Amino acid sequence: MTRQEEKKIEGKEPAPSLLSAIDSPQDLKRLSLRELERLAAEIRRTIIETVACTGGHLAPNLGVVELTLALHYAFDSPNDRIIWDVGHQCYTHKLVTGRRDRFRTLRQYGGISGFPKREESRHDAFGAGHASTSISAALGMSAAKHLKGCSSRIVAVIGDGSLTGGMAFEALNHAGDLGKDLIVVLNDNEMSISPNVGAFSSLLSRKLSSRTVMSLKKELESTLRAIPGVGNNILQILKKSEDSFLAFFTPGMLFQALRFHYIGPIKGHRLDRLIETFETAKNIRGPVLIHVGTVKGKGYEPAECDPASFHGVGCFDVRTGKSSGPKEAPPSYTSVFGRCLVELAEKDPRIVAITAAMPQGTGLVRFSELYPTRFFDVGIAEQHAVTFAAGLAAEGYRPVVAVYSTFLQRAYDQIVHDVCLQNLPVVFAMDRGGLVGEDGPTHHGVFDLSYLRHIPNMTVMAPKDENELRHMLKTALHHKGPVAVRYPRGRGQGVPLDEPPRALPVGRGELLREGDDAVLVAIGHPVAAACRAAELLEEEGLRVAVINARFVKPLDKDLILDWVERTGLLVTIEENALQGGFGSAVLECLADEGRLPRRAVRIGIPDAFVQHGKRDILRKDVGLDAESIARTVRTALTRPHGAPIRAIG
Amino acid sequence: MTRQEEKKIEGKEPAPSLLSAIDSPQDLKRLSLRELERLAAEIRRTIIETVACTGGHLAPNLGVVELTLALHYAFDSPNDRIIWDVGHQCYTHKLVTGRRDRFRTLRQYGGISGFPKREESRHDAFGAGHASTSISAALGMSAAKHLKGCSSRIVAVIGDGSLTGGMAFEALNHAGDLGKDLIVVLNDNEMSISPNVGAFSSLLSRKLSSRTVMSLKKELESTLRAIPGVGNNILQILKKSEDSFLAFFTPGMLFQALRFHYIGPIKGHRLDRLIETFETAKNIRGPVLIHVGTVKGKGYEPAECDPASFHGVGCFDVRTGKSSGPKEAPPSYTSVFGRCLVELAEKDPRIVAITAAMPQGTGLVRFSELYPTRFFDVGIAEQHAVTFAAGLAAEGYRPVVAVYSTFLQRAYDQIVHDVCLQNLPVVFAMDRGGLVGEDGPTHHGVFDLSYLRHIPNMTVMAPKDENELRHMLKTALHHKGPVAVRYPRGRGQGVPLDEPPRALPVGRGELLREGDDAVLVAIGHPVAAACRAAELLEEEGLRVAVINARFVKPLDKDLILDWVERTGLLVTIEENALQGGFGSAVLECLADEGRLPRRAVRIGIPDAFVQHGKRDILRKDVGLDAESIARTVRTALTRPHGAPIRAIG
Repeated sequence: MTRQEEKKIEGKEPAPSLLSAIDSPQDLKRLSLRELERLAAEIRRTIIETVACTGGHLAPNLGVVELTLALHYAFDSPNDRIIWDVGHQCYTHKLVTGRRDRFRTLRQYGGISGFPKREESRHDAFGAGHASTSISAALGMSAAKHLKGCSSRIVAVIGDGSLTGGMAFEALNHAGDLGKDLIVVLNDNEMSISPNVGAFSSLLSRKLSSRTVMSLKKELESTLRAIPGVGNNILQILKKSEDSFLAFFTPGMLFQALRFHYIGPIKGHRLDRLIETFETAKNIRGPVLIHVGTVKGKGYEPAECDPASFHGVGCFDVRTGKSSGPKEAPPSYTSVFGRCLVELAEKDPRIVAITAAMPQGTGLVRFSELYPTRFFDVGIAEQHAVTFAAGLAAEGYRPVVAVYSTFLQRAYDQIVHDVCLQNLPVVFAMDRGGLVGEDGPTHHGVFDLSYLRHIPNMTVMAPKDENELRHMLKTALHHKGPVAVRYPRGRGQGVPLDEPPRALPVGRGELLREGDDAVLVAIGHPVAAACRAAELLEEEGLRVAVINARFVKPLDKDLILDWVERTGLLVTIEENALQGGFGSAVLECLADEGRLPRRAVRIGIPDAFVQHGKRDILRKDVGLDAESIARTVRTALTRPHGAPIRAIG
Repeated sequence: MTRQEEKKIEGKEPAPSLLSAIDSPQDLKRLSLRELERLAAEIRRTIIETVACTGGHLAPNLGVVELTLALHYAFDSPNDRIIWDVGHQCYTHKLVTGRRDRFRTLRQYGGISGFPKREESRHDAFGAGHASTSISAALGMSAAKHLKGCSSRIVAVIGDGSLTGGMAFEALNHAGDLGKDLIVVLNDNEMSISPNVGAFSSLLSRKLSSRTVMSLKKELESTLRAIPGVGNNILQILKKSEDSFLAFFTPGMLFQALRFHYIGPIKGHRLDRLIETFETAKNIRGPVLIHVGTVKGKGYEPAECDPASFHGVGCFDVRTGKSSGPKEAPPSYTSVFGRCLVELAEKDPRIVAITAAMPQGTGLVRFSELYPTRFFDVGIAEQHAVTFAAGLAAEGYRPVVAVYSTFLQRAYDQIVHDVCLQNLPVVFAMDRGGLVGEDGPTHHGVFDLSYLRHIPNMTVMAPKDENELRHMLKTALHHKGPVAVRYPRGRGQGVPLDEPPRALPVGRGELLREGDDAVLVAIGHPVAAACRAAELLEEEGLRVAVINARFVKPLDKDLILDWVERTGLLVTIEENALQGGFGSAVLECLADEGRLPRRAVRIGIPDAFVQHGKRDILRKDVGLDAESIARTVRTALTRPHGAPIRAIG
């Protein structure tokens, strides 16, 4: 690094390393303020350099270095509990709670997780990965503390983005009612992954519209008039300017009305102020909210300038901030989806797109630019997103909810109750279906086929490649009912894209390969591995048929039955939980038809949470790579009736 | 009815009937105010008399008679859209939108639904049944209206109870941001089903604690001080009394801060004021919130005095308000659960109980009285309830979340992410599992086995009777991980209750009956029908074995495999979706063991939403009664391989 390059990482300090002496939060308490500031700089550098190699959540972590140090300085973890919301900001926490030496294994297979994880450390009081859960968990812990009569402090750290999730509001509402000791630290950086949306966030940042201000003023005037003794003078003052009124209605009042003691806003990169505030908060009984202003990406120029792109990153060059991943790769499923939706929306004005705070992640940026009135970012609010989409569908629109599989879990009831029961044509474009890799078990999208296929009226499909994704999107938008299209994280197969996308026949799969020894019925991206497995087996003289099922629901019953009868050995392949998933659907179908085969093997995710690590490794572990599939088929063919036959990872 | 009895129904008026002339909302517009008031009285009487025969939601409907008439008078349904939250208050709406003559079929099989239903009427703009969805749906419709450029008005009617659900907050937040025309009518009766909990509801009703008021005052003073020109006089006034400050901080300010135009509070039983307000609101651009105060159970003395008990009722005697249902029946599963939990909690101080606004419905009233510090009513907030429970479990407590199966759908993600991933010992006491009868498809709990059993670490069981429920509760509280116990609505089987409840071996079923011709493997309350079916078949000389599976997960593999091999015909029986349910789990198990039978029939809920009606009728329809089960078994025994074999309803 040149000197100029080094300047990009603010506050870079020379050795000796302070961090190397921090084995637990207790060690922080011996440092002076000046030393803590130096430590913050060291940590920031460590995070940047590590994430540049491992990938991970950069901007959120850079924003809370001082906040985390101050928390661990003022509080006494693990006796005091610190609960991180989402958890994508826990790197400093990990560095100062005994995981410094393992930090370079961040997000790597067998290494430490990118999120708080109870089994990893006593300092990780509660696991996280999805938004808006921390106040609920902390309040449960606070209730426990009061029942036990112990003196632990309970601290939830939540971003302003996470506060747009309704669950956080449910928890605030209950916390104010319960009145137990609880410290909520609001990490306000005015961002979710992208800039925040929602009236609440404007309120926090006091960026109220003139209309809102005028309306508040009017209300204030009329209520003040009702107070005996209020003269015209105060009303005159209030009338004078909007600014003075803005100063008057503070975010604090809102939290206080919810019975929280409010402190703030505090400057979130000033260690002295933070520590002082946390020390004060320790002595307050009942719920307290500390409003801290931070800068996402703080201290790393490229991230400060573009915090959305640096929210979560792959490997990058520290000097430039540019991705150092492979170039010229096939386009991602996400981008193919985004481009295709733009293309279809051009011809069909009924198409509208909805995201829950993830326009970049779900590939909707171009759509939002081209069709701003038909694009809706609803905040981190999947439940609302789905029912909002149902409302649009009820009025004749064709809403596409673009969402990660794991986050759509939060709207399961709305899918059942508001979409499917009314048979409304909402399309769920489910990105990150299957194993997502380094983000781990909180982010793997491995339950969706199971939690969607039992809902009446739902059609569920998954493309074998990015070209088929386009046809499926077209199919979904032509179908007169709810449809989920589920596709994986990452690059496509690099296949040519047919123009234009065309609607596929619903409930029809395709036979990719004939063979008499077994039939592999695969769904989604594992179709490619199934085909490679068939090639491997052919080298040994075994001939297996391969079916691309395309639809989990409705199944292509005839095609599957035909080939199961021809071959006598059914092998289903899916990157989804084996319980209630695609293979389970095929078994149900065969049973209903009175044509159960004697032998059937289901390959997929076994009944356990899959840890983090590169997808290739994880797929091998669960037996979803071509070699493992071939091995499983080979073994099943030689196994007598009555012997267990399972996937071999 | 005597004259005195009649007085209990306030405002009773003599003939001629105005209601008989109301065929559509248009007909209301011809009535004078006085006539509308008379009509309200007629409607109230009609509702009371009908619900006394059919059962249904009484108190919520009596509270909104005037509100509904005023809405239909001022707005122009179906061109204007009225969206009811939960929908349990739609009876007046149904009476004036062409369903008067069918009103006596309310909630009866083949009759009209007790909830809004799109396929029933063009006036039912959006279906409902679960709480907190109306603003989301309405906002979607409002977005559609703006895209279309049409002039429809969109009105969401939501109770203050439903506002405790986070989804409603998500929608308010988005609505304020979007700024589209939308009218939200807040029906504030200070109740969910039971009195509301939560800081927000205190704020609405201005029942702020002194502490909150003091804290707000302090904030106000310091911010006022910062405004140039504010003298000591105003500060003195504010200091004078808490009351004046209370008058100052209004609920309206909160909604205005969320960028809603706020009107209210309005008296909700004054037709003139309501109509005038709605007429005003029609001309306001952007989101409007109209705060209406109503009385739950209004006009029927027993319901006004005890609105919680009259929220939803069975048949009752109009004169006394007393239930006219059968006496001396076996206790309900709900009450057996409630008593057993009290008994177990006496010996184990770690047991705590959590409800989402339904202490009565879930049988927790006695628990809440005996152990008030260990009882938590969190509001209509299932998501928060589950993660709050996880927080308690992480601290060593044994939380029992008592909840209806259909409502737990809303916390699916929290079950996966906060409970099961961390393997925390939260017990889900899932009432209303299976068909619930007259409440219909929004309330049937027929997906739970499917949405729970694919989650790793989860144990899922269902008792065959109320005695087994007690043992299962004991089992669940002994188990070191998440457990769901699922039991049905209504009375138990009337079996004796063993004392004390004892822990059952996890993953072990019980053989209830031997037989060589087939094995019926049943889960939960359908075990009784399976046994009766076996008796019926025995009369014909067929001998079928019956297994009470007890556990959906883990399955009693050995027991099931043994009897499947002995008999050659497997019949699974469950009151749950056939897709991904219990029968599906049994098939998976047999496939994994390489021991699939040639014939297997799964009896359960087919892939369609089941309508409302008496449970006996619905069970016959889906083939879950003893006669249908016997018929299905008989048919399956004579069916050759390769012929479809399915349940016969």
